[in-house]
Amino acid sequence: MDFETIQHDISDGILTITLNRPEQLNAFTVTMADELEHSFRAVNDDDSVRAVIVTGAGRAFCAGMDLSSEGNVFGLDEELTPGLQDMTDLDDPAIAGVRDAGGRCTLAIHDCRKPVIAALNGPAVGIGATMTLAMDRRLMSTSARIGLVFGRIGIVPEACSTWFLPRLVGPSAAIDLVLSADILDAEAARAVGLVDEVHPEEDLLTQAVRVADSWTRDRSPVAVALTRQMVRRNGSLDQPSDAHRVDSLAMFWTSIGDGKEGVAAFLEKRKPEFRGRASAMPDFYDDWVTGERP
Amino acid sequence: MDFETIQHDISDGILTITLNRPEQLNAFTVTMADELEHSFRAVNDDDSVRAVIVTGAGRAFCAGMDLSSEGNVFGLDEELTPGLQDMTDLDDPAIAGVRDAGGRCTLAIHDCRKPVIAALNGPAVGIGATMTLAMDRRLMSTSARIGLVFGRIGIVPEACSTWFLPRLVGPSAAIDLVLSADILDAEAARAVGLVDEVHPEEDLLTQAVRVADSWTRDRSPVAVALTRQMVRRNGSLDQPSDAHRVDSLAMFWTSIGDGKEGVAAFLEKRKPEFRGRASAMPDFYDDWVTGERP
Amino acid sequence: MDFETIQHDISDGILTITLNRPEQLNAFTVTMADELEHSFRAVNDDDSVRAVIVTGAGRAFCAGMDLSSEGNVFGLDEELTPGLQDMTDLDDPAIAGVRDAGGRCTLAIHDCRKPVIAALNGPAVGIGATMTLAMDRRLMSTSARIGLVFGRIGIVPEACSTWFLPRLVGPSAAIDLVLSADILDAEAARAVGLVDEVHPEEDLLTQAVRVADSWTRDRSPVAVALTRQMVRRNGSLDQPSDAHRVDSLAMFWTSIGDGKEGVAAFLEKRKPEFRGRASAMPDFYDDWVTGERP
Repeated sequence: MDFETIQHDISDGILTITLNRPEQLNAFTVTMADELEHSFRAVNDDDSVRAVIVTGAGRAFCAGMDLSSEGNVFGLDEELTPGLQDMTDLDDPAIAGVRDAGGRCTLAIHDCRKPVIAALNGPAVGIGATMTLAMDRRLMSTSARIGLVFGRIGIVPEACSTWFLPRLVGPSAAIDLVLSADILDAEAARAVGLVDEVHPEEDLLTQAVRVADSWTRDRSPVAVALTRQMVRRNGSLDQPSDAHRVDSLAMFWTSIGDGKEGVAAFLEKRKPEFRGRASAMPDFYDDWVTGERP
Repeated sequence: MDFETIQHDISDGILTITLNRPEQLNAFTVTMADELEHSFRAVNDDDSVRAVIVTGAGRAFCAGMDLSSEGNVFGLDEELTPGLQDMTDLDDPAIAGVRDAGGRCTLAIHDCRKPVIAALNGPAVGIGATMTLAMDRRLMSTSARIGLVFGRIGIVPEACSTWFLPRLVGPSAAIDLVLSADILDAEAARAVGLVDEVHPEEDLLTQAVRVADSWTRDRSPVAVALTRQMVRRNGSLDQPSDAHRVDSLAMFWTSIGDGKEGVAAFLEKRKPEFRGRASAMPDFYDDWVTGERP
Repeated sequence: MDFETIQHDISDGILTITLNRPEQLNAFTVTMADELEHSFRAVNDDDSVRAVIVTGAGRAFCAGMDLSSEGNVFGLDEELTPGLQDMTDLDDPAIAGVRDAGGRCTLAIHDCRKPVIAALNGPAVGIGATMTLAMDRRLMSTSARIGLVFGRIGIVPEACSTWFLPRLVGPSAAIDLVLSADILDAEAARAVGLVDEVHPEEDLLTQAVRVADSWTRDRSPVAVALTRQMVRRNGSLDQPSDAHRVDSLAMFWTSIGDGKEGVAAFLEKRKPEFRGRASAMPDFYDDWVTGERP
């Protein structure tokens, strides 16, 4: 598939997605949203990929929404939006159809069967910051900066960032980051928990590959996908008894599957050769992960 | 409005609420609960106020429940409470009417459209500590102390504190704070995450104003109110797809509202002049905040 | 009661449960699951016990699932499991009956009326690590190690650990711990929040007793049980208004119960003598803890 705004490179089982509008500091457009959403949905069925890295071309990671772009960012019927002054101008079905483009991306990242690692090579603001909150680990270049700057222009943080952010940094730091709308340097971002690791720019992709390898090399792709979703979904349920049902099914499934090879290899002190594929998850997986989605 | 137990001062868009029973170390009474709940509900409709600071008169912030007060702290029918030995003496409708007075305050703080900053000028114990957990940031005087001391007298933490506390400090520290019932000095409180900043007493209110300004000066009151509730509500939903609906509506609403001025001012490199008012929130807001989610 | 795989010792109101298969490094079996689940359910009715400590006999805490054990770890009908290759071989009622043995233990720990403290005297891997996440505080010997090693053998973390872990260490560290499947030494485990305290092995049990005493000596067992469950249950509800109902009932119950003695003792500057018993919790308690919220 050809992309307009991003680039795909696959090497040794790792898909690197590069935001690729360097002249515009990789500013986000509706086309970029569509291409990212497609990428994170399609990779689920590509068994040649075990992990995903996201980075930016040129000197920025992503400078936020492209304010000059013409796209229909809310997915609304084009005939309804021109001149729209008020939500009361929209009838209920139209309101029900409003969908934040950034959220379409982060939900696809959230649902992904492969771990996703952000390599913040340069400035990441607005959606450039919030899209990374849905990823599994954020690595940042020493010289990069990051900010949830929405409040400066009278709008709200999006892309489900108010779901992800308080979990990552706690509610006190979360409210301060979004209300102050401050832009943080790498050390400040790490101190508050907004990013996990800081590296010199020249080491950034190497370090991202190190993380991807430590998580997925010689591992069962089925167990990796299940584990990733269990941390994301069980971790936010009301009570542990709600997690117990999924735990039981996932442990049972892997025990009669790749776990047999895993135990055998462990006892024989050899490297395991797992045969499970993330493109073929157990029956309960899709119902569980797709839940009730708007 | 005249208050018996608190004082209101408005200056430059900031409402300072002072707990004002200094002879009783600002001990909490049912009247104080009523006056605080009223204040945090009424400020939603007062567009002259952009942020709220809460502090105490005299040398204490709040010494906890006034054990000598006669008030009906649970909101029960007075005829039912005298001599009550057991919950089995209450019929179901009476039990359904039991309402913790501290919780009435913290729920009003939680629902507020304006950021709320605690300035802990002196000792804060019991409800004096728990009421601040519902606020957006806690600043503490170097010499102040704070403790969730309920366990020492055979009762439980209230005011929804067991909802707020684990989010702020994590479940391990939360259970230790409430079971040990320890009273912490300012540095210990900051180390565990119970407060966010420690300042000399003479700087405390200045620092609280600094936070309020960094969050609300030259900002859209509508975007501030939406953002505050998104962090609080989306941050605790089961799954990010549940947050996506509200994100989409809130981003759409601000984009066709104050966001237009925000982007224009940004492109023209001038200060924005937002016209939205927190007293006039979008249609979906009340349903959402009062519990009927979209 | 006689146990095969664990040992009970009660001293001064503290029950110490010792995992007791030292020759097998206390490896977990279905019998151990049954005996632990039984212990944490039965202790609720034993008013002579105010807190529980869990440790291991010999040089390990627990080396994980005993891979040589024959037990029916998923609670399945024995006739269905031999030769089972696929979950599609199971009809729905059988699948509905799949229950992870580790989860049976951690749910019993979660529901317990007494605080539970882990004293990790030696290596804790697999279920040896995950069972401790449901406890209230983790103390670790300087020389012990801990790891959620499931991914190494192609299986998933269990025992509701994906519910507990992100709360304890945050989602970024949680996904790294389970996907890397790293084994951490005591300092690394404390740094990431996986354990709370590190002590020389010879002090470990003394320190565990110190924690148990600071939480439960001269305290109301009813208030302790209610408080423990409020932190666990209210802390994970969607909104604080959901917590307010339980807060109100629990505060009311303790105010007309042990709270009267607590306040009297406080005013008279003497030690309280509480008469409440954890074996006799209020009517709303069981419905609440078993899942029917008031």
